Amino acid sequence: RKRILITGGAGFVGSHLVDQLMLAGHEVIVADNFFTGRRRNVEHWIGHENFELIHHDVVNPLFIEVDQIYHLASPASPPNYMYNPIKTIKTNAVGTINMLGLAKRVKARLLLASTSEVYGDPEVHPQREDYWGHVNPIGPRACYDEGKRVAETMCFAYKKQENVEIRVARIFNTFGPRMHMNDGRVVSNFILQALQNNDITIYGNGTQTRSFQYVSDLVAGLISLMNSNYSFPVNIGNPDEHTILNFAQIIKSLVGGTSEIVHKKAMTDDPRKRKPDISLARKELNWMPKVDMIAGINKTIDFFRSELVRSK
Amino acid sequence: RKRILITGGAGFVGSHLVDQLMLAGHEVIVADNFFTGRRRNVEHWIGHENFELIHHDVVNPLFIEVDQIYHLASPASPPNYMYNPIKTIKTNAVGTINMLGLAKRVKARLLLASTSEVYGDPEVHPQREDYWGHVNPIGPRACYDEGKRVAETMCFAYKKQENVEIRVARIFNTFGPRMHMNDGRVVSNFILQALQNNDITIYGNGTQTRSFQYVSDLVAGLISLMNSNYSFPVNIGNPDEHTILNFAQIIKSLVGGTSEIVHKKAMTDDPRKRKPDISLARKELNWMPKVDMIAGINKTIDFFRSELVRSK
Ligand SMILES: NC(=O)c1ccc[n+]([C@@H]2O[C@H](COP(=O)([O-])OP(=O)(O)OC[C@H]3O[C@@H](n4cnc5c(N)ncnc54)[C@H](O)[C@@H]3O)[C@@H](O)[C@H]2O)c1
Ligand SMILES: NC(=O)c1ccc[n+]([C@@H]2O[C@H](COP(=O)([O-])OP(=O)(O)OC[C@H]3O[C@@H](n4cnc5c(N)ncnc54)[C@H](O)[C@@H]3O)[C@@H](O)[C@H]2O)c1
Ligand SMILES: O=c1ccn([C@@H]2O[C@H](COP(=O)(O)OP(=O)(O)O)[C@@H](O)[C@H]2O)c(=O)[nH]1
Ligand SMILES: O=c1ccn([C@@H]2O[C@H](COP(=O)(O)OP(=O)(O)O)[C@@H](O)[C@H]2O)c(=O)[nH]1
Ligand SMILES: O=c1ccn([C@@H]2O[C@H](COP(=O)(O)OP(=O)(O)O)[C@@H](O)[C@H]2O)c(=O)[nH]1
Ligand SMILES: O=c1ccn([C@@H]2O[C@H](COP(=O)(O)OP(=O)(O)O)[C@@H](O)[C@H]2O)c(=O)[nH]1
Repeated sequence: RKRILITGGAGFVGSHLVDQLMLAGHEVIVADNFFTGRRRNVEHWIGHENFELIHHDVVNPLFIEVDQIYHLASPASPPNYMYNPIKTIKTNAVGTINMLGLAKRVKARLLLASTSEVYGDPEVHPQREDYWGHVNPIGPRACYDEGKRVAETMCFAYKKQENVEIRVARIFNTFGPRMHMNDGRVVSNFILQALQNNDITIYGNGTQTRSFQYVSDLVAGLISLMNSNYSFPVNIGNPDEHTILNFAQIIKSLVGGTSEIVHKKAMTDDPRKRKPDISLARKELNWMPKVDMIAGINKTIDFFRSELVRSK
Repeated sequence: RKRILITGGAGFVGSHLVDQLMLAGHEVIVADNFFTGRRRNVEHWIGHENFELIHHDVVNPLFIEVDQIYHLASPASPPNYMYNPIKTIKTNAVGTINMLGLAKRVKARLLLASTSEVYGDPEVHPQREDYWGHVNPIGPRACYDEGKRVAETMCFAYKKQENVEIRVARIFNTFGPRMHMNDGRVVSNFILQALQNNDITIYGNGTQTRSFQYVSDLVAGLISLMNSNYSFPVNIGNPDEHTILNFAQIIKSLVGGTSEIVHKKAMTDDPRKRKPDISLARKELNWMPKVDMIAGINKTIDFFRSELVRSK
């Protein structure tokens, strides 16, 4: 039984991680500033003796005693991280320094929730962990991409210089219940549009690809990486690649309804394709995704359907 | 006449910039933590009514009133920035946030001393400003390369969100008097080795290239960029490219003596070639380098010769 800090634990991924770690009997502390996270995501644990929720911004130092830190605090979707680029960079740069300082002091192991965005608009396909990436340092996505890159750099600096135990998960696009209704990510947009019989909006021609993993697969991967002996970056994602157009069609057919698929202006620096090479995770963690995309989408549709009822 | 802050102003480049701005009649404030800088580089101005030297680490906030900020504070040579990678990242990440916060508060214009290292080990040659770079985010040079990349990202975030006026100079390899004797950069190493009749040490086979600019050219470029209307990154460097082997031969022949040229182990992630495309600086700043390399090296040899005498 361990004392585990989850920064960003009131968010989409973080709250599912809380569930698994609580069910495994650990003591879980969530630190979240509620920028995109919600109390409601973890409220079923409030009052449990192993659970604590701290309203805290990781840009400020945090002094607690823990054994492991899952460092997830960061805006994650393009509209959210572009909303306040300065805050996004401070969260990833200063926030990560603080969490590494904490890990150093209490000798905790820290897992960084990095991202496939460190590969930027990749020139190799699928992406392996030894690919250095193709990122515009001054583009509109840079506050997030470069923020996460430098967060990785910091982890390796603290590892080398202070022997801090680090783990780095490069997370690929993930979906599932508790995704935000209005954060503008493709899965939530398309499902909501389909449920409301609105146009399904494809940015650009829809030939760009993504590979979507269901959130329970991700959480299993994060836990197994944290507890492994492997300290270099590991891709955690589902290699099942789809064009955005195809993805729109799948969602439209699963939801039914009368939505039309329409095309909008392409986004600046939008990566054209993305697909993880997960050989390393298979080898080092014996991990691979298990949830079939259609099954995952159906659960997510159910979630959004009840959210829509709730918000009426 | 302006009030001008120069962070890192007691260093090699910074001190030459101090000289030019003082000669132009400005009020100059230097903030330096003396990690690699030396009082001696600016001591000829101490006591002048327009000059102030503050012993300050940019990782901590600084509250002063200025019109312009040349933000140069950062270890700059590989041995220096690898000596304490955590400090290198904090200086570039937190230090740059602080200087941007200062610029925002006092509405000063900030020029960031960025670097050709943001291009990493480049796959295009020569490097233009629109090249996104090829940098290993977790390699031994990352603390500097990613630190400078995220510093650029921060500048553009403060520009976009807070209308801070920014200038970004991507500085290519520079040499001249007041370079550090022992910072391990190629120019100082080779000159000192030649002056002392020691082996001239080439890392690897010596086919890697660099393009060296003399420090007075750089300083002219920085001042003209600061006072221009161009707010995107600009390369400041000399496109006169040499292999490191050729460079060793030139220095050996200029110094004379009995040194042998020898080969040592190549450095990890050492960029194979580097040469600026300076069309943008020509166009926007009407700037180009003027000092011939041989003339510059001879001045630098004179400087090191007297340093050696001095240190006896
Ligand atoms: N969901 C994905 O597809 C995906 C893909 C790659 C990486 N990631 C990474 O996984 C992590 C979680 O993402 P998510 O999808 O759950 O997003 P999310 O927005 O639901 O969760 C992020 C959480 O961090 C919190 N937070 C943000 N800034 C904070 C700060 N300064 N201090 C404290 N808390 C702060 C938010 O309030 C939220 O609870 C993020 O680091 C994200 O970059 C997610
Ligand atoms: N010389 C080059 O070839 C070159 C090339 C590219 C970029 N640059 C950039 O130009 C700038 C100046 O480089 P330089 O060659 O003069 O190096 P330098 O080491 O001589 O100067 C750096 C100065 O910054 C100071 N400093 C370092 N960390 C600090 C901190 N935390 N707080 C306050 N001061 C701090 C040092 O004491 C020193 O005076 C650096 O930002 C460097 O990255 C230089
Ligand atoms: O338990 C701790 C220890 C450190 N820190 C923060 O982590 C940062 C980096 O820590 P480090 O030990 O590297 O920094 P130092 O204290 O040496 O400046 C510091 O600025 C602290 O604010 C924290 O939040 N909690
Ligand atoms: O309503 C939407 C939202 C997103 N996208 C596209 O879907 C892909 C994935 O976008 P998302 O914001 O979910 O994540 P990203 O992988 O870009 O971070 C990108 O190519 C977007 O341009 C889209 O076509 N329509
Ligand atoms: O004159 C100033 C104003 C701000 N800052 C620092 O700059 C950082 C970023 O400033 P910003 O205004 O973005 O931050 P905020 O004060 O909103 O946290 C702050 O943490 C301050 O420590 C500084 O050093 N000098
Ligand atoms: O004693 C030395 C020092 C440097 N170098 C090489 O010279 C080039 C320039 O190195 P420097 O450290 O001056 O600057 P960099 O451009 O790598 O930041 C690199 O290829 C180094 O491997 C060398 O061969 N011998």
